[in-house]
Amino acid sequence: MKLYDDKYAPNPRRVRIFLAEKGIEVPVQEVAIMKGEHKTPEFRKISPLSQVPAFELDDGTCLTETLAICRYFEATNPEVPLFGRTPVEIALVEMWQRRAELNLMMPIAMFFRHTNEIMAGLEDQMPEWGEKNKPRIVGGMKFFDAHLKGHDFLVGDYFSMADIVLLTTIDFAMFAGVPIADDLVNLKAWYERMSARPSAKA
Amino acid sequence: MKLYDDKYAPNPRRVRIFLAEKGIEVPVQEVAIMKGEHKTPEFRKISPLSQVPAFELDDGTCLTETLAICRYFEATNPEVPLFGRTPVEIALVEMWQRRAELNLMMPIAMFFRHTNEIMAGLEDQMPEWGEKNKPRIVGGMKFFDAHLKGHDFLVGDYFSMADIVLLTTIDFAMFAGVPIADDLVNLKAWYERMSARPSAKA
Repeated sequence: MKLYDDKYAPNPRRVRIFLAEKGIEVPVQEVAIMKGEHKTPEFRKISPLSQVPAFELDDGTCLTETLAICRYFEATNPEVPLFGRTPVEIALVEMWQRRAELNLMMPIAMFFRHTNEIMAGLEDQMPEWGEKNKPRIVGGMKFFDAHLKGHDFLVGDYFSMADIVLLTTIDFAMFAGVPIADDLVNLKAWYERMSARPSAKA
Repeated sequence: MKLYDDKYAPNPRRVRIFLAEKGIEVPVQEVAIMKGEHKTPEFRKISPLSQVPAFELDDGTCLTETLAICRYFEATNPEVPLFGRTPVEIALVEMWQRRAELNLMMPIAMFFRHTNEIMAGLEDQMPEWGEKNKPRIVGGMKFFDAHLKGHDFLVGDYFSMADIVLLTTIDFAMFAGVPIADDLVNLKAWYERMSARPSAKA
């Protein structure tokens, strides 16, 4: 088995944090997205849509999509469970993970791709569309801040995949130039707690 | 428990098909999105982001996000399994479900929201952005067509949540004015098979 990874992209980091929380080590090969290594014909045999990370099993099966790779490890290495322990918790982890992706990661990605000069050569940019996403980022952060009041984690007292997705999303927002506003004290405190976990360095 | 549903929107239909495949019946209350019923303060207590469907448990827990609601029922009613039976299958279902959502449903939603006159009063439309998504829809359908050559379902010989998500996505694409091109014979044949299942009428 082999994990195709890129240390500088937000999505592969989700998998690294997930594996670190479970104490799993796997062989890794770097694929430098900014050098275009994900677009070579060779890598497209592993990841047809040029997605990084990708995970190759010993039987040749290739998995892409961070959540799919993590679910494989949740099924093969159920301890520590990170996708929920009860039916309600399983549903709440999925709900908060999706809210982090759809209501925050998506507008951040649109803002970054369509306004940041790093992306100018990689994307047919439409700056007006990118800017239109900025209020959604700010609104999304406010929504998470309100939810986190009085909670240590997104799902009750339970660290989960939802926290991993939100953590990598917030770090990417800061990289894209949209830090957490000072008055969002609950989100800031949560972010500091998550960033202090050893897995966050993965 | 109660499912808040809208017969005319693509996302709630995912849950109805999922429940029909498992043979589960739950009390339903209609929330008419086109009449704005999802934006009332009353409904926002159940679904803070005005999302439909929503599912209210007997203890007052409210779930939104179709996939979260379906995962609750997968955990409480594991037969018939629709999210995979083995670790690899679980990962492949998640991968193909996400590919259907991110590579097809997303561009269709963008195209529809930003170009269709039905949405003119509900969305601050940017037609240029909407049109930019159309080639991604066509490319996405080609990708699924190529994958489905020689396969009955998205994940091998196994009907899963991934097929449900792609089916509702294709139906929404047709509603949005982007039918399957005639030369995509594998996708067309798959679509006809899925549409013929009794659950597709749910």
